Amino acid sequence: MKNFDLPFLPERTQKPRKSGITMMMDKGLSNTQTEYIIESCGELIDFVKFGFGTSYLTKNLKIKLALYKEANINCYLGGTLFEAYAVRDMFDDYRRLLDELDLEVAEVSDGCIHIDQEKKLKYISELSNQVKVLSEVGSKSADVVLSDGEWISKMNSELKAGSWKVIAEARESGTIGIYDSEGGAKSEMIDHISEQVNAENIIWEAPQKAQQVWFINHFGANVNLGNIAPEEVIPLETLRLGLRGDTFFSFIPDDVAKPFK
Amino acid sequence: MKNFDLPFLPERTQKPRKSGITMMMDKGLSNTQTEYIIESCGELIDFVKFGFGTSYLTKNLKIKLALYKEANINCYLGGTLFEAYAVRDMFDDYRRLLDELDLEVAEVSDGCIHIDQEKKLKYISELSNQVKVLSEVGSKSADVVLSDGEWISKMNSELKAGSWKVIAEARESGTIGIYDSEGGAKSEMIDHISEQVNAENIIWEAPQKAQQVWFINHFGANVNLGNIAPEEVIPLETLRLGLRGDTFFSFIPDDVAKPFK
Amino acid sequence: MKNFDLPFLPERTQKPRKSGITMMMDKGLSNTQTEYIIESCGELIDFVKFGFGTSYLTKNLKIKLALYKEANINCYLGGTLFEAYAVRDMFDDYRRLLDELDLEVAEVSDGCIHIDQEKKLKYISELSNQVKVLSEVGSKSADVVLSDGEWISKMNSELKAGSWKVIAEARESGTIGIYDSEGGAKSEMIDHISEQVNAENIIWEAPQKAQQVWFINHFGANVNLGNIAPEEVIPLETLRLGLRGDTFFSFIPDDVAKPFK
Repeated sequence: MKNFDLPFLPERTQKPRKSGITMMMDKGLSNTQTEYIIESCGELIDFVKFGFGTSYLTKNLKIKLALYKEANINCYLGGTLFEAYAVRDMFDDYRRLLDELDLEVAEVSDGCIHIDQEKKLKYISELSNQVKVLSEVGSKSADVVLSDGEWISKMNSELKAGSWKVIAEARESGTIGIYDSEGGAKSEMIDHISEQVNAENIIWEAPQKAQQVWFINHFGANVNLGNIAPEEVIPLETLRLGLRGDTFFSFIPDDVAKPFK
Repeated sequence: MKNFDLPFLPERTQKPRKSGITMMMDKGLSNTQTEYIIESCGELIDFVKFGFGTSYLTKNLKIKLALYKEANINCYLGGTLFEAYAVRDMFDDYRRLLDELDLEVAEVSDGCIHIDQEKKLKYISELSNQVKVLSEVGSKSADVVLSDGEWISKMNSELKAGSWKVIAEARESGTIGIYDSEGGAKSEMIDHISEQVNAENIIWEAPQKAQQVWFINHFGANVNLGNIAPEEVIPLETLRLGLRGDTFFSFIPDDVAKPFK
Repeated sequence: MKNFDLPFLPERTQKPRKSGITMMMDKGLSNTQTEYIIESCGELIDFVKFGFGTSYLTKNLKIKLALYKEANINCYLGGTLFEAYAVRDMFDDYRRLLDELDLEVAEVSDGCIHIDQEKKLKYISELSNQVKVLSEVGSKSADVVLSDGEWISKMNSELKAGSWKVIAEARESGTIGIYDSEGGAKSEMIDHISEQVNAENIIWEAPQKAQQVWFINHFGANVNLGNIAPEEVIPLETLRLGLRGDTFFSFIPDDVAKPFK
């Protein structure tokens, strides 16, 4: 399937992936664009998030959903849209919307609004009877800072309540939550989290290349990464495989690499 | 036309819009790309600017113009091209070019070159007999800083001379004119301007998301915004509708929002 | 071929270009995208680099190669892939790969790995019997800083060994090698290099607009530039022609320009 043979490439998981997941953010691609994304890298994409409320505006939404489905890509509506329903006290309408669109995945988040954790867990639990739930931990506001313990307890309680994976919030910009305002990974915090939460159950939002590099070098080729821009799906895969400068030596045995360092 | 019903969304103006205008910058899209932009969000775009001199190089320019026209999108040549003709003393050739391309809109600007305001007003006045004129105020150079009074008097005199709208210069980067070098909105200056010039007559160039957010929160969903990148047209519309984190609470009644803040 | 006539535009070289070269970076475009890039600006592109190891993942790679070839665009595999073969001691496999893909150009680089200059020259010399060689000077690591003399001697020895052009490394980001960490051109160093190496034989990687502007204003419209993003090929050409703000006055005679400055 790949174009040539090279030794010392890490083994990548295959669909349906439980780890090594790539979640792409679709901010309003046309159906034509969707087709050529699938053409060029559909097998590398596990989940597509229709970012924030863009799905409200998508022309021929059902055609788009069918295109992704045929390529074995799971689509879901961005968490901000879930919150837009929740703030309007329209959770039942949201559930009907998921059915009407025949969606198999849904995100539960509290990035824009404050929801008591108990209520969030109830949303997760109820939705998990209908769809696969991805729940997001972390606020979109720089003013809300969670302690390591809060990240851990939220993640574990949401997984227990029925979330298939938990997502660590970073926004499209990658400057919040698990990153500082410059986009640098909060490594100590991330280490604490991954000691207490099974890292295979976490999808790390990592829109910036340096963030993707950090996670691959820290957790390996098959770390779960999200908020990947469409044109960065293939470049990310080269990072996972050690075929880009930043991870060039990550998977090559020391004795092979040594003379070239 | 939208995919689902949600209360508390601001009412958006419809084409042909006098306010709530979105002006997209086309830096050389192929005709195929033009087709899928129109497919996915043509109804959200009022004006397309062929950035700077890119129209000189566009293959099958008349086909592109026909595609946009059929979608009720007004195209115009970037102001830098007007200035390229003006500096060569070829204003009459420019007028012929507009005719030959069957354009209905033209920009008059002095972002690269110095033109006496009187001469600029004459250009505006003459062109306004031929096409709808958008005139731009502000320099592309960081060295040229206009006082609040200069912004106001230029804008009002250009509107009086025949401009349909005036554009506040920010460049593709969004770091000049109405913004500081970091892209932050000069809020006091913008307030002064909007007290003295009817804001419905101003198109604010706002290429960065934070700038779009600032203007929507300041002037409402139907503020006129320009220099929007093609892939940001739909994300901008979600900001206008309060369906993205940054404007999530902007249009929700206080009593509904309160428990979630 | 151009859409209108304007005096005082610099004369651009035509294909097959020896100077005035534009090298575009393809990070994984689908074949459909490749088609519309060629449709809109194929004549402006001389070389396409399949960035780092992306060619490993390209679907229908031979169709993509045929599309570019038909448009008289020379494709080559990114230097990182050459290094991936070199570090594995698979140089002969690399040569077979070039044959199998029917490639006419290859890059030799040492941006990720350390190779003795003598060995690099041998690679260049051997490959130059098979294909046109572009060799890259400069490291991808900020820790490796070459002196002016090292840049010059490496470039000249590689040209002598058989390189058709040498490439000055800057990465996709444009913050290394010939630039400082903010992307600013190291002008004194570049001047030293161009005094001792025929500038027509150098392709300067210049992904950022300010860098393109700097080189055009320094070396003229027909400077060789590389690592250009697909959507920036047409904007770059407007810079080369003086049809964008940043180079607006670069090619206009002083007496014409003076009243407008």
